Amino acid sequence: MKKTRHVRADGRYVYWYSFAAPPPAILDVREQARGDEQVELRWNALLGEHVIVSTARQGRTFLPPVEHCPLCPTDAGGGFVTEIPSADFEFAVFENRFPSFRPDAPAVVDDSPLERRARAAGVCEVVVYSPMHDASLATIGAAAVRRLVDVWADRYAELAARPDVAYVFIFENRGKEIGVTLTHPHGQIYAFPFVPPRVEQEHRAAAEHHARTGRCLLCDVTQAELAHRERIIAEDENFIAYVPFAARVPYEVHVAPVMHRPSLAELSRGQRDRFARLLRVVQEKYDNLWGFPMPYTMSMHQKVADGLARPGEHLHVEFMPPYRAADKLKYLAGVETGAGTFINDTAPEEKARELREASPRT
Amino acid sequence: MKKTRHVRADGRYVYWYSFAAPPPAILDVREQARGDEQVELRWNALLGEHVIVSTARQGRTFLPPVEHCPLCPTDAGGGFVTEIPSADFEFAVFENRFPSFRPDAPAVVDDSPLERRARAAGVCEVVVYSPMHDASLATIGAAAVRRLVDVWADRYAELAARPDVAYVFIFENRGKEIGVTLTHPHGQIYAFPFVPPRVEQEHRAAAEHHARTGRCLLCDVTQAELAHRERIIAEDENFIAYVPFAARVPYEVHVAPVMHRPSLAELSRGQRDRFARLLRVVQEKYDNLWGFPMPYTMSMHQKVADGLARPGEHLHVEFMPPYRAADKLKYLAGVETGAGTFINDTAPEEKARELREASPRT
Repeated sequence: MKKTRHVRADGRYVYWYSFAAPPPAILDVREQARGDEQVELRWNALLGEHVIVSTARQGRTFLPPVEHCPLCPTDAGGGFVTEIPSADFEFAVFENRFPSFRPDAPAVVDDSPLERRARAAGVCEVVVYSPMHDASLATIGAAAVRRLVDVWADRYAELAARPDVAYVFIFENRGKEIGVTLTHPHGQIYAFPFVPPRVEQEHRAAAEHHARTGRCLLCDVTQAELAHRERIIAEDENFIAYVPFAARVPYEVHVAPVMHRPSLAELSRGQRDRFARLLRVVQEKYDNLWGFPMPYTMSMHQKVADGLARPGEHLHVEFMPPYRAADKLKYLAGVETGAGTFINDTAPEEKARELREASPRT
Repeated sequence: MKKTRHVRADGRYVYWYSFAAPPPAILDVREQARGDEQVELRWNALLGEHVIVSTARQGRTFLPPVEHCPLCPTDAGGGFVTEIPSADFEFAVFENRFPSFRPDAPAVVDDSPLERRARAAGVCEVVVYSPMHDASLATIGAAAVRRLVDVWADRYAELAARPDVAYVFIFENRGKEIGVTLTHPHGQIYAFPFVPPRVEQEHRAAAEHHARTGRCLLCDVTQAELAHRERIIAEDENFIAYVPFAARVPYEVHVAPVMHRPSLAELSRGQRDRFARLLRVVQEKYDNLWGFPMPYTMSMHQKVADGLARPGEHLHVEFMPPYRAADKLKYLAGVETGAGTFINDTAPEEKARELREASPRT
């Protein structure tokens, strides 16, 4: 794997990840229009958590026609400058033009003891999976997904080492049903300046389990799933993919190593092979279930980057599709947003059986 | 206010709330088809919270044509039996036919120490605002909204007194954009057998504030909003409506009493008058902003019903509309669901100004 770094005229970096091919020769890193809109963290006193206020995002590109896709390579004619300076690449990673965090986020001052702000330091990256506009994780091929795991591992390591980063959150939003504004295949990375609430919540639960049993929570959860197998949808010798016992949405799937691994950094080459293969199987099962690409959010949870020891940090990926049936969306309404409790209208064991039987294409 | 209780042939209750009019004479409480699908709580070990698994809900009525609306009164001809036994009423409250909690929820057993279930005891009620199919909170008239506050207060008192109820959650989902399956104007009440996570989270923040300052958090927040006024959109002598400093979505609005009141039970008649009036002003501003009925979830947070003392319990209503602009929805995607952090693409002060200037109809 080779990585080449370039800096755009507007100061944002672009990385080229090259495996088989040499790095691209033609590079157009002309400036993109970039506003100086407000980006800051505001402390939500009622809930005890940060909210990101990023007015730059309101103006972001919204479902553009394909000829104006900012993630397609800049045309050789050079009329429309995109985020991607060359067509000759495998993976490209660049700083988001409409970021929630930025390394040069402005300093802030509090309005009052209850109206507190914090600098939105950190980094927001976009990971472009392919120069092809119509590709997806399910169609770029097994070798490319395997390479993407290496790209993720490299981004995780680089971003976790930054002093302004507390948590590296790798994720993908897929499908217009989940609000995706650009259809070109891509994922994102938010390098947070704080540990986000869902991660803190997982760590509280894991710490309680560890205090009670002396063991890692997800090590025990994966063993319990393996013991009765009724919610496992796919597996290999190192990883299982399963619908959790208390799935929050009908087709929620978790992928986790059965051995204890806090992050991608601790996976061997062979384990990365199997991880990539299983992620691809999950995607293919999703797309096979109803014969159309399943939208979802995919979230990767890994070891916190603040250097503190936390028991029970265990790599896992969570897929959350927004459908409760082929023709019905599951909405997060009053009970979810106002009370914080998820209602699952289906039996997790039944949804696991459906996905298990939705064989991947061969 | 008079309240009359009837029991359907299938065992579910229906309450009639009558103010000016006498209780209805014609009552058709024939049985509704009711399944015995699974309803249970499952403990999400990774997050340390309950998930409601209610397979009955998957078959619930989905956007029926108006002649099959289950919240319209049963036709005098009697062919189609609805949830509403008479046309002659002001407010009707009945037990949800597709409940997440039910008083007779079946006993459960754990699968393993990590796969724990709990009985889904409790009550789910539907509150029908009007016999008119096309009405809404904004159009039923000021007097009706005032009466609805009395109905809510009565439901809160009755449900909070039940031994199987820990928290009474009054809410309304409005608009198909938020997943509403029935357009007839109605709200809901979930009488939870546990304190839901968002409420626990608010109490943790309020307890910390109280420990540090000796004061109620929301008393201090409302005073801070009153001090600079830039996010207040409407007010009267007892209540303010404002966009919070750290609003999670662009048009989030909170309505809270400026004096300390833990629940509807502690409001005087005059305070209820003003509360109803301000709720209606907020609704009118929402509907005026873009000239169409604004969808939202409305959540009411009140004193927990488990009898334990908690500092800083302070009644408030939270409106969360799903739009970030007149033609763009705000989706909860990877950062919200996977990391638990909200991204607000707008400045709360600017959205407050827009709503302040969206005068209610006169």
